Amino acid sequence: MEINPSLVAASYREQIRNATSKSPSKIKLVGLLASDDEASSVYSDFTKLGCEDVGVEYEARRISKLEIEQELINLNSDTDVTGVIVYYPIFGGARDAHLRSVLSPAKDVEGLHPYWLKKLYQNERSVGPNLKAILPCTPLAVIKLLDSSGAFTSDPSPLKGKVVTIFNRSEVVGRPLAFMMSNDGAKVYSFDIDGPSVFEPFSSKELETKISREEALSKSDIIITGVPNKTFDLIKAEEIKDNCVYVNFSSFKNYDESIKEKCSIFIPRVGPVTVAMCLRNVLRLNEQFSNRENLGVIEF
Amino acid sequence: MEINPSLVAASYREQIRNATSKSPSKIKLVGLLASDDEASSVYSDFTKLGCEDVGVEYEARRISKLEIEQELINLNSDTDVTGVIVYYPIFGGARDAHLRSVLSPAKDVEGLHPYWLKKLYQNERSVGPNLKAILPCTPLAVIKLLDSSGAFTSDPSPLKGKVVTIFNRSEVVGRPLAFMMSNDGAKVYSFDIDGPSVFEPFSSKELETKISREEALSKSDIIITGVPNKTFDLIKAEEIKDNCVYVNFSSFKNYDESIKEKCSIFIPRVGPVTVAMCLRNVLRLNEQFSNRENLGVIEF
Repeated sequence: MEINPSLVAASYREQIRNATSKSPSKIKLVGLLASDDEASSVYSDFTKLGCEDVGVEYEARRISKLEIEQELINLNSDTDVTGVIVYYPIFGGARDAHLRSVLSPAKDVEGLHPYWLKKLYQNERSVGPNLKAILPCTPLAVIKLLDSSGAFTSDPSPLKGKVVTIFNRSEVVGRPLAFMMSNDGAKVYSFDIDGPSVFEPFSSKELETKISREEALSKSDIIITGVPNKTFDLIKAEEIKDNCVYVNFSSFKNYDESIKEKCSIFIPRVGPVTVAMCLRNVLRLNEQFSNRENLGVIEF
Repeated sequence: MEINPSLVAASYREQIRNATSKSPSKIKLVGLLASDDEASSVYSDFTKLGCEDVGVEYEARRISKLEIEQELINLNSDTDVTGVIVYYPIFGGARDAHLRSVLSPAKDVEGLHPYWLKKLYQNERSVGPNLKAILPCTPLAVIKLLDSSGAFTSDPSPLKGKVVTIFNRSEVVGRPLAFMMSNDGAKVYSFDIDGPSVFEPFSSKELETKISREEALSKSDIIITGVPNKTFDLIKAEEIKDNCVYVNFSSFKNYDESIKEKCSIFIPRVGPVTVAMCLRNVLRLNEQFSNRENLGVIEF
C-alpha cells in the first residue's frame, strides 16, 4: 500500500484549522530566506499555502545572510509574531548551528533549538508542570505518517518490539528521529558515512555497533532513508524483509522500484506532512507562549 | 618587540593562584578527551600543568565519542566538579555544535555555549544583576596579550580608532574575537574562505564588504592570523603598515619572517595564555555558580 502524504497532511491541517479558528488572537508565522537555495523557496511557498489553508498569517522575509542574526534577535521580542522558521542551509555547519540557538525556543517552529533537542534526547516531553515540548517537524512527520499508516501498535509504547533502520544521522532529522523511535520502544540502527550506531529501546542513548547494512535491513520492520545524494546505493527488494514499512524522506529516491511490491506500506516522501507539523508547532507555540508569563518556565 | 606568551601566562596564573588560595571550597576541572587528536592530548597535558600551578584539581577523562553526551549531562549535576572543558573536534560540524549546547553554561570553561556566545554578540557583559559573563578562552587570550603588550589605550573603549584584520571567522575563535574587538571600539575586517566581512566599532554586527586583503592589511593597526592550514598565502612585510601589531594563533606560521622587523609588537602564539584564561574561567565559574542559587539567573 502506498501512502499519499498529501492526504495525511490535509487531515492534520483540518484539525489545525479547527483549533486556530478558536484562537482569540491572530497567529503569525515568519519565514526567513537568506540563501538562493531553490528548495528553501519551494518550502516557503508550500508553507504559505499551508498557512492560508489553516488560518495562520504567513510572511516570507528575504534578507541577506549577515542580517539574519540581528533579525532573529528582533523577532524574539516581536509580540506580533508567534513563530519563526528559518530556511537552512545558510552558511552551513557550525554557524548554522549557532543561528539555531539564537532564535528563542518559544518562537522555534522547527523544534531544533538546542533546548528542544536536549529535551528530546532526554525523553522529557513536557516543559515546566504543564506545557508540551516542541518536536522537530520532519522527524515528527515521519512518526505521524507511520502512525496513520497503521505501523504502530496501540500500546503506550507504540514501537515496542520493532526494529528500525534509518539512513541519515544528521542533527536535524536522522538523529532526533532515532531518539524519538527509541523513546517509543524501537531498537534503531542508524547509518551514515561514519558507519552504523544503535539506539536500544527506551535508552535515550546512542551506542557503537558493528552491524552491516545487510544484517540491519534483513531484521528491520521499518526502513527509513534520507540520504541527500544520488550516489547512495539504492535499497533493493532482496535486502528487505517481507511486509516491512518503508519511508523515504530524501529529495532523491533512495530505493529501487522493486521494493514497492515487497513492503506492506510504502511512503515515498514526507514533505507535505512536514509542513503540517510546522503549522501544528506554530499552534502549540501560540497556545503555550503567547502568554509571555510562560516564557519563564523555559530554562537551562 | 616579540612577546613571550609564556611570561604573560605566568603572570595571569599568579593572580589566579592568589585567588584560588582564598577559595573555601575545592575547585575541580574535568577535561573530556573523546578523540585521538594529538593536539587535544597536548592541550589537556598543558591544562593539567596549569591547574597544578594554580591549585586547581584537574582530571582528564578518556571516553568514547558516543558516551560524551551522557557524560556531559551527568557532569552538569555533579556538585564535585566546578567546570568542564571538552577537547574538540570530536564529530566535527553541527554535531560538535550540538554538544557545546549540552554542557551547562554554568560549567562551561570554554565560554562557547550558545548562551555565552549570544551574550558576547549582544555585548552583554553581565548575567543577572551582578554576575560576569564567561568569555571564550582563545579570543580572550588574544585580547589579554594585546593588552599586556601595550597595544591598547587606557580609554574605556581601549581599541577606539583602531583598525583590525582577522584571518579566521570560525564560531569558536575568529568570530567571537571580531565581536570582542568591535565591542572595544575597533573596526574589524574579517577574512575567511567565503571572503571578507566587516564589524564596525560598537556595532555588534557583521556586515558585507568588498575590501581586498591588500587594502585591509595596509590599513590595519592590528593583524591577527589563525588559518589552520599550510596553504595560506603568508602575510609579508610589504603588505603591512609600519609599527603595526601582529598576532598569530594558528598552529601554523601564517607569516613570513620578514614581518618581524616591520611590526612594533609581534606575538607568535597564544596557547599558554589560552590555558591561563581557561583557569581564569574556572575560577569565575567557582565564584559565581558554586552557589547553586545563582544558576537561576541563567535564562534564555
